[in-house]
Amino acid sequence: MYKEIKEKAYKANMMLYKLGIAPFTWGNASECDREKRVFAIKPSGVEYEELTPEMMVIVDFDGNKVEGEYNPSSDTATHAVLYSNFPDIGGVVHSHSINAVAFAQAGIPVPALGTTHADFCFGEVPCARELTDSEVNGEYEKSTGDVIVSHFRDNNIDENAVPAVLVRSHGPFTWGKSAKDAAKNAGTLEIVAEMALKTLRLNPEIVAIPSYLLNKHYMRKHGKNAYYGQGK
Amino acid sequence: MYKEIKEKAYKANMMLYKLGIAPFTWGNASECDREKRVFAIKPSGVEYEELTPEMMVIVDFDGNKVEGEYNPSSDTATHAVLYSNFPDIGGVVHSHSINAVAFAQAGIPVPALGTTHADFCFGEVPCARELTDSEVNGEYEKSTGDVIVSHFRDNNIDENAVPAVLVRSHGPFTWGKSAKDAAKNAGTLEIVAEMALKTLRLNPEIVAIPSYLLNKHYMRKHGKNAYYGQGK
Amino acid sequence: MYKEIKEKAYKANMMLYKLGIAPFTWGNASECDREKRVFAIKPSGVEYEELTPEMMVIVDFDGNKVEGEYNPSSDTATHAVLYSNFPDIGGVVHSHSINAVAFAQAGIPVPALGTTHADFCFGEVPCARELTDSEVNGEYEKSTGDVIVSHFRDNNIDENAVPAVLVRSHGPFTWGKSAKDAAKNAGTLEIVAEMALKTLRLNPEIVAIPSYLLNKHYMRKHGKNAYYGQGK
Amino acid sequence: MYKEIKEKAYKANMMLYKLGIAPFTWGNASECDREKRVFAIKPSGVEYEELTPEMMVIVDFDGNKVEGEYNPSSDTATHAVLYSNFPDIGGVVHSHSINAVAFAQAGIPVPALGTTHADFCFGEVPCARELTDSEVNGEYEKSTGDVIVSHFRDNNIDENAVPAVLVRSHGPFTWGKSAKDAAKNAGTLEIVAEMALKTLRLNPEIVAIPSYLLNKHYMRKHGKNAYYGQGK
Repeated sequence: MYKEIKEKAYKANMMLYKLGIAPFTWGNASECDREKRVFAIKPSGVEYEELTPEMMVIVDFDGNKVEGEYNPSSDTATHAVLYSNFPDIGGVVHSHSINAVAFAQAGIPVPALGTTHADFCFGEVPCARELTDSEVNGEYEKSTGDVIVSHFRDNNIDENAVPAVLVRSHGPFTWGKSAKDAAKNAGTLEIVAEMALKTLRLNPEIVAIPSYLLNKHYMRKHGKNAYYGQGK
Repeated sequence: MYKEIKEKAYKANMMLYKLGIAPFTWGNASECDREKRVFAIKPSGVEYEELTPEMMVIVDFDGNKVEGEYNPSSDTATHAVLYSNFPDIGGVVHSHSINAVAFAQAGIPVPALGTTHADFCFGEVPCARELTDSEVNGEYEKSTGDVIVSHFRDNNIDENAVPAVLVRSHGPFTWGKSAKDAAKNAGTLEIVAEMALKTLRLNPEIVAIPSYLLNKHYMRKHGKNAYYGQGK
Repeated sequence: MYKEIKEKAYKANMMLYKLGIAPFTWGNASECDREKRVFAIKPSGVEYEELTPEMMVIVDFDGNKVEGEYNPSSDTATHAVLYSNFPDIGGVVHSHSINAVAFAQAGIPVPALGTTHADFCFGEVPCARELTDSEVNGEYEKSTGDVIVSHFRDNNIDENAVPAVLVRSHGPFTWGKSAKDAAKNAGTLEIVAEMALKTLRLNPEIVAIPSYLLNKHYMRKHGKNAYYGQGK
Repeated sequence: MYKEIKEKAYKANMMLYKLGIAPFTWGNASECDREKRVFAIKPSGVEYEELTPEMMVIVDFDGNKVEGEYNPSSDTATHAVLYSNFPDIGGVVHSHSINAVAFAQAGIPVPALGTTHADFCFGEVPCARELTDSEVNGEYEKSTGDVIVSHFRDNNIDENAVPAVLVRSHGPFTWGKSAKDAAKNAGTLEIVAEMALKTLRLNPEIVAIPSYLLNKHYMRKHGKNAYYGQGK
């Protein structure tokens, strides 16, 4: 019944593994079906080498398990909040990639320092605040999603143009039109984070690229008149 | 007779090799049998590509060889001390992974700067003192174990919640319920050490995460009410 | 008809992929035929694993597509400008390799700090200026090529001795006698950039090597009396 | 006739390639036959994937080619000087590994900061001076060897205990009982250089480990009473 989204979620999870951005079992990807208001997500703690499409767990947008033998990822409630609040996204990824986590642990957004960044994200990758004691000891994973959504709403950030966030002291979440897109964004974030870290070391005074360059690169790949790629 | 622990020790040694944290022959894993008070450990100086389960050496908790054709790892006496003094552990690993060694050489504990760290270790990975001249020229490897155990006892650190240590000017030792667990902890330590090094470069003023976040992440994976993974 | 240059362009594109300097689809190599004044270039946005020699697109030196089913790389106009203005080159590569991009984002040339650099490039790898708003919003990719050529002409840099440039806030372009040469230069630039970044960290006061050493290494590999390799 | 040393030299060259410390064609290993006063060395500029044992070139200790179809490595004269002056060595390697080159370019020895270093080298890896203009424009590669030998003799360094050197602005040379040993030392040097670079970043005030610890680790692996490994 949910074969297609299970297959897509499975492939995106394996992409995290192949990209080397989810060491051990530290990462999860999900693909949603907006009509049925469900998503397929990685089972918790299962090693990538043992994963199959059938093991994906089906969960609704309130975070309740709908189908599946396994327990869903412990981060499932965060995915559910993102699907509920970001109406255009089709896939979500959480990873623990090293350079993105370093920025999250330092509490610093990843600045837009070049066109590699602009090709993927329209501006800096923001860093959402650390959760409070009561949030952590309440519905922790749901609150993680709430903190991300609030950060985007309070700062008027468009989640369709900025498909990534760092949660302070934790790590990155990314999303996209599909689980595959979200996984690609997770891989890209890790690379631009490494580039940014090294740029800052060479030139600590560096600032974000001018908005006309940010705009140009983002739009040539993602805008209405995009001319990167082979069209649709 | 010791087939099971030999097999487990062998697999954990190969895991070190595959994780890339034991270049050349610089690492060793052991698995113990608490009832028989023996452990199976890698033979000294043998390359991973040539290793077989049968080559594992059986040693008792006093460090005496019980069975096996080969000389056991030169670090065998350290493993023996850890098994004798840490009653709940089933596996030990020593490695020379680059980032963990950098902290050991700098004489700095690996601080708990994020949830990746908290998922594996309840607080900083401590750095035990350098050995003295007489310890080094006496029973060096046994003293290495003694210094680790003293560090944990003197500082009231629970070895079951903190499954890793750095020995100053030397490198990391890790442990766990099994050799596989210990190897996984060695791999995790290397990653969180790299994250910490990069975090400190981005933000030299950073301090450890709040205890409620440390507690939450450690407990959701290792506590009595852990909800990470597929249960038992 | 253009089989040979398509095959060569294809192989150089795959070399970028194997060298790991063009993550996802972020890189492109082309090989030109000077008599026909055309070049074969990677199709835009196609993943390396799906690439075949037949998919290469043939473009003339004014940037107009001559043959091919696919849209050519979005950076095609930059390649065209380089072929038009650098009369001795036979191949061009653009990549987003991490360390070279870090220098481009920092706006710093890669200094010639050792013989590894001198073996490939006669002096520092220059950093061309960032494009202006009107250039970016005009013929962006063509202007990128113009800025590179102007930088070489204005500073009297010989493009045959310095086969690489950084475009500020963007990344590296390299060239050579063939697409293969250009790809090798892209890989070499990434390595010497990493070496330079680490050297500067160890010794921030370091300056370029003496000209007699630069000259010797460059000439023993590329000069008329070169004695590196197996001759012709 | 020289089959055995060709085979050994070939295997050591391939080891450099597999260790990833000789990108493209930038590295060479040789194995000598002391009785015949010749050594087998990599042909110049040949890619590792195309290398065969038969392609190794036989050269005498004065640097003259004795046998072989190919031109020997451009660094051949340096190998010859090392064999002539270091009577106990059986293999030599030159590489361009990134972290070791960074120290060479910075003009800084690799300090002995931990037991990983002590296991391979009895004290810091020295950095020999840059060559002068007349040396570079005279017999460059022979002078490179002379500068290394002088550095060891003038500073009373025992080449059998310190099997590695950096040549300033150039890179590392290593040696050992065999080409395999020399290649292993080249790989080890790269790792300890990376460890040292990261240690210095964490703690810029760090100094070399105490001599009793250096002595212990070096001797347990290389001394008369060595107890690492499986004996002889």
